[in-house]
This record gives sequence, structure tokens and C-alpha cells, in this order.
Amino acid sequence: MSQNFDIPAGYRELAAPDLIALVAETPDLAARLGGAAQDWRCDEISDGNMNAVWRLAGPAGAIVAKQALPYIRVIGEGWPFPVSRAEYEHRALVDHGRAAPGVPPRVHAYRPDLALIFMEALQPHVVARAGFVAGRRFPTLARDLGLYLARSLVGTSDLVLTTAAKNALVDRYSGNAELCATTQDVVFTGPYHEAPLNRLTPGQEGLAAQLRGDSALRLAAMEMKHAFRSQAEALIHGDLHTGSLMLSADETRVIDPEWAFVGPMGFDIGAVLGNLWLAAFSQPGHATAADDRQEMTAWLLNVAEEAWATFVEEATRLAHPRPGGLIETEVAGDGVGQAFVAARLAAVWRDTLGFAGAKMIRRILGISHVADFEEIADIPTRAACEARALRMARHLLLNRAALRSPSEVSDLARDIAQGRRQV
Amino acid sequence: MSQNFDIPAGYRELAAPDLIALVAETPDLAARLGGAAQDWRCDEISDGNMNAVWRLAGPAGAIVAKQALPYIRVIGEGWPFPVSRAEYEHRALVDHGRAAPGVPPRVHAYRPDLALIFMEALQPHVVARAGFVAGRRFPTLARDLGLYLARSLVGTSDLVLTTAAKNALVDRYSGNAELCATTQDVVFTGPYHEAPLNRLTPGQEGLAAQLRGDSALRLAAMEMKHAFRSQAEALIHGDLHTGSLMLSADETRVIDPEWAFVGPMGFDIGAVLGNLWLAAFSQPGHATAADDRQEMTAWLLNVAEEAWATFVEEATRLAHPRPGGLIETEVAGDGVGQAFVAARLAAVWRDTLGFAGAKMIRRILGISHVADFEEIADIPTRAACEARALRMARHLLLNRAALRSPSEVSDLARDIAQGRRQV
Repeated sequence: MSQNFDIPAGYRELAAPDLIALVAETPDLAARLGGAAQDWRCDEISDGNMNAVWRLAGPAGAIVAKQALPYIRVIGEGWPFPVSRAEYEHRALVDHGRAAPGVPPRVHAYRPDLALIFMEALQPHVVARAGFVAGRRFPTLARDLGLYLARSLVGTSDLVLTTAAKNALVDRYSGNAELCATTQDVVFTGPYHEAPLNRLTPGQEGLAAQLRGDSALRLAAMEMKHAFRSQAEALIHGDLHTGSLMLSADETRVIDPEWAFVGPMGFDIGAVLGNLWLAAFSQPGHATAADDRQEMTAWLLNVAEEAWATFVEEATRLAHPRPGGLIETEVAGDGVGQAFVAARLAAVWRDTLGFAGAKMIRRILGISHVADFEEIADIPTRAACEARALRMARHLLLNRAALRSPSEVSDLARDIAQGRRQV
Repeated sequence: MSQNFDIPAGYRELAAPDLIALVAETPDLAARLGGAAQDWRCDEISDGNMNAVWRLAGPAGAIVAKQALPYIRVIGEGWPFPVSRAEYEHRALVDHGRAAPGVPPRVHAYRPDLALIFMEALQPHVVARAGFVAGRRFPTLARDLGLYLARSLVGTSDLVLTTAAKNALVDRYSGNAELCATTQDVVFTGPYHEAPLNRLTPGQEGLAAQLRGDSALRLAAMEMKHAFRSQAEALIHGDLHTGSLMLSADETRVIDPEWAFVGPMGFDIGAVLGNLWLAAFSQPGHATAADDRQEMTAWLLNVAEEAWATFVEEATRLAHPRPGGLIETEVAGDGVGQAFVAARLAAVWRDTLGFAGAKMIRRILGISHVADFEEIADIPTRAACEARALRMARHLLLNRAALRSPSEVSDLARDIAQGRRQV
């Protein structure tokens, strides 16, 4: 974390007037806003911690601009971070846009010298995590997610690509190593010892110490870290939590793929299911007299189940024998191709549970926490919700080879939430 | 296989006089031979099927020259094959030479324009496979092999490298895709159906048909193919059969790494153990009145056992916590680091058995056969030896998760060889 990274010649941190000027000098972008510069407004809407994001609006429409900053913002300028991640984000928006059309925002313009991407403004979409805290449900989410996961992952995997195309894809993202290394630190290592930037909800100290002293859990996290580093299965988003999902009543969009690289499918699926499960465990903390959030909890668990079922269905549809793909017609007969795909998906499911557990733990014991819990004002309630999520997460990591289906996981979550089961 | 590949400007197929001329114009090389061009001899010693190889000798010493040909030779010019593989061979000689010093031949000069490598002449070394057919034993082989496998594989893996260094290593070999695709064809697919270039020993037709109709076996081969394509664990040699081992009474050297890429450790280990097991099953075919080859068989099985034991020992020694490596000191305590390494090696062992089985089968049912069996003149004896090896190989592929130790595999091999067990 003390390295310095190349910054393109001409790079400078932009402010709202710079964005207006950049759009004004780019006819395609200006036409999207309509009118002229004096008719436009530019609002900074950054809510991540590594980038500056603006929404530009004019009489004809709106666009979003996102600039990678040369440091991680919440920590100040002491943590340098490569702006080259804008390059990988741009590539992933293009590559996943091809594999899963209509899901990533459309790119309107890209300025590598400024690590700046102009893209489609998503409206009236809201960040999934904020929607879940507010108790909103999204009817198409489960199916959209399952389709997106299958298309973005299986569609960029050995099941579909030739070896030459797969190797070229690996190459295209291998320079994104610093972000992969950071993920390893914050997901698989940091939460499991007293790393300086970790944060705990008051009251969580005892369980945190217990989990950090749990060798079986640390071993499982290390095994998932190895899977993260060595399983070059598909182009993954790399940070697919519920803050990267933008939802409307009938659409699911996926933003912020700057962590993309060719890695294990289960890392993306585990990230999104793990964050759905975190949301479910946080719901009691958001209960009011009018809404006990039981239905919301049930809906969240069901989204995870249905997303996985849709993923399996679409993955199976995509993974037919293709020239140069892994499954070759000559040897796939007598059900061998289907059995292979089923075994593959079972392995992805095991990884999914392990990664989901790791992603849940890191949001409670690690450096970066989530609104699902942070917005529970009552600290003892927050700590209790987190503790149930932690126990569930540990169980997922340790029993990833034994839990066969998402409905079993939902049962487990309900049992833990209602105190019917100690794990 | 019908593609055309780039050939460097200036590339031409060389003959012995060209080699003499090239050495004469390169002072470093000329000095190794001593004297002048009229004192040198150049003998073609090619015995592979994709390259031309010469041994050049002069008053002061000898060197070897190896040129990649733009086609696979045994098939004629109808099968184009990229000469860029000389580039990857050169890189692997350097990279594995650094990880496992003294094992690959030293490179004296490299001419990318001619896809030509001048390297150390290994003498008095013999090709391991030929030595085994002749009944020769090599006292240091088992330990040398174990050390080489650990250093070349663990030393180029996530257990030792930073993510940035590992990604750079992946990049360095990702252009070798055509050779990876060819391996998949000839190892994991071709043998399992009636591919046009397959060859069978007369008498093997029945068992071949039975194995090709065996869905569980075809599924296992497809799973190993997936592991080959997606498990980016370490820089592997990629073709580590006993024709790539050059042995003397006290030295083990490894040649011909043009198939190198970052893949599963078990592919190299399985190749070498599988070929040792093939050699063991072939021994009855080489028995004479004076030597029933029982001791040779026992020695070969023991080499596999001892090589694995040495690999485990050296791998464990190398896989300690290192800055940027996968195992970090802060979370490795209470035996977690050791348990992780043990679990990793158990997974590598399972892969090893699967790949060994696939490598054994492909040498009997596929396009390219081995001297171990081909030099058994009596066809029914040859077919019987092969059949036992095939049954063993199938058992390894189907039971790779159940066979816990190399000594169990040796017991199995003895039982099959002596008809005590039907598998």
C-alpha cells in the first residue's frame, strides 16, 4: 500500500466546471445534454471511496462522469491507488456489455488521460443496498441477476471461449493486479487479525476475537483466497455487492467493475448472495411499528434462491458443445456434457458459499462496513444483527461442501435469525 | 489445426551446414566447440516430431541446437504448428532455470528469427524412457524429480509470488495458446472417440471401444480438461513425460518445455508419475530369461512414491509465509499455514492422479504412442501390458478423490499387474 503508481501525463483531479468544459468540447456528449453549457448542471454524486462521480444534466438528458482518483478517498491521500483501474473498468463495461447486453451502463466516452468515463445516467434507478434498507422490493431483481450472472460469467468462460480467446481475455485484465491484491487484503486477510484499519461495532469485540482465534475459519478464508488467486474461470466483476446494483421497478443494472479480472465465478455470485444475506440479517434493525420487515426478509432470501436457480438454468443453456469450447460434441454424448456442466455448477456453488461467507465477515470485522448495518441507529440491535450474520457466514465457510442448495441456506438463515439454531 | 501461424521474417529450415555457419559467426558458441569450423561435426539427433535437433561437437566440447519447425513432422506439412513455441521454450528454460537451478539445460544463445535455441549438450545423459526400456535404474532420479517438481512448481506459484509477479508470469506464456489447445485435443478429447489420427495396438480394439463408451471416464477426462484450462497455479513444463527427462547416474535434467504455461501443478506431476507407471506396466514385455524385470518394476513404482514424498517435503519447506505471498504471517498461526499447505498438496495429489490417468490412456488410445510399449515386439504381449495400464489409468481417473497415497497406487499397480485385482 506504500507503492506509487503511474499517473498518465495530463491527469488532474477534476471539479464540476471542468466536467462542463469537457462535455462542451465533445459534440456527442453535448448533444446528449442538449442546449448549451449555460443550460447544464453538474452535481457531484460520489458515494464510493475511490472515485469522483458527477451527474451532468441538460434540457435533453443526463450523463454520468466517473473519474478514478490516485488514492482511496476515505483514507486520505496516504493510500495511493492506481488510476489505471479506469482502464479496466472501461474494458469490463465493454466486455460484460457484450456478454450481458443492457446490464452495464453504456459508455458514451472514455478519456484514458484523465482516467475518466462518461456513461449512461441510470434513472430512476436506486442503489440496491439503499432500497433494501428502505424496505423496497424489486420484482425483476432475482431473475435479472440470475441471467446477468450466467451471461457475464459463463459467457466469458472456458465453457464458451476458445483457449486463444480465453488467454487474450486473461491478458486484458492481468495488469489490474493491485486491485486484486487489495481485495485479498481486505476480504481474506485483514478481517481475520487486528489489522490497523479494521472497525467493529461496539459490543462485537468478543465475537470478533472468537472468530479471529478460530483456526478452521482462518484456514477456510485462506483456501478461498487461493481460489480467488488461481481459479481463472471467467471475467468477473470483482466487487459485486449490493452497492454495485442499480435497480428500478423493472430493471437491474450493474455498475463499477473496476475490480474486474479473470477469476472464480463464485466470487461474483458469492458477493451478491452474501450481500443479500447481510441485507436479510439487517432487516430486524429496520423494523418499525408498521412493518416488522418479516416479508422483506423472506423476499431477500427468496431473491438469493431464485437468482441461483435462474443462473443454473441460463448457464446450462449457454454451456452446450461449441467449436473450440471445452465441451466437444464427439465426447459429450450419453449425458456426459450435461453431467459435466452439473458438476461444474456444483463446484461453483461450493465456491459461492465460501466467498459469500468471506464477503459477509469482511463487512463486519473489516475496514469497510455496509449501510445495511450502519444505518441501524441502536448499537446493541446493530451488534446483534451483525452477530447473527457472522455466525451464518462462518457456517457457510466451514460447511460449503455440505450445504447443497440455496433453500437449505435460506432455512439456515431463518433458523439463525429466529434463534432456533446455534451455529 | 488448419490455421496458419506467423513465421518470423528470415525464418528458414536449417540443415547441418547452416548450423556450422551459425556457430562459426557466433564467437561464444565457437569457443565452446574449440578449434575452427573444419574441426566440427554436426549430427542431426531429432527424435521428437515437431523440431529439428542437432548435436555440434568440436575439440573443446559440444552444444545442442534445436529449431522449431512450422509443422508437426510425423504428420508432414499438413499440420501447421507455430514456431513461436521456441520463444516459450526459451522463456521456460530461463524461468524454470531460475526456480530449479541446474535442471533445465543452460541456454547458450537464442535466435528468435530462426526459432532456434543453442543449449548445453547433456552427456552422458540418456532419455529416461529409453533407459527404462533397457532396464536401467538411476539412483538419484526419485529425489531429483521431487525437488525439481517442488522448485519449478511451488516456486512459480501463488504460494511464493506476489499477485503482480504471478500475473506477469501468466502474461509471459498466454500467447502459447495453440500448444495448450493441441494438448487438450490429444490428451483429453482425441483418445475418447474415434479421432482420425488415433492408433491402436492390434487386439486393443475391444477395450478401446469399452473405454470410449464409458461415460464416467469421459466425464472424468472432461473435468481434467477443465482443470487444465482454468487452474492457473504455477508455471508448468506442460509435457513432462519420461521422454523429456535426461538422466545420468547422478543427475536428472529436464528438456523441451515448449508447452509451458501457467496451469495446474498436477499436470506436470501426473505426466511424470503416469509415465513411470506406464513404464512399470511395460516391464513384463521386456523380460528376458536373465531378467524378469520384477526388480525394475518395483524400482519404477518406488520412484513415483519417493518423488511424491520429496515433492511434499520440499513444497512444504518452500511454502512458508512471505511478504505478498498467499500465506500471510498475521493469519497463519496456530497451524493454519501448515494445514493450508497440506490441504493444497492433497488437492494437487487428486489432480495428479487424474492427469496421470489421462496421460496413460492417451499414449495407448491416442495419436502418439510410447517406446515403453512400442518396443515390445510380440503384439499380444504388448496389448496385454497396455490393457493392464489402461485399466489402472481408468481407476486413477475415476477414484482420484479416494486414493490417498502413492503407496496405495503402487499396491494397486502390483495387484493389477499380477491379476490379483480386477478394476
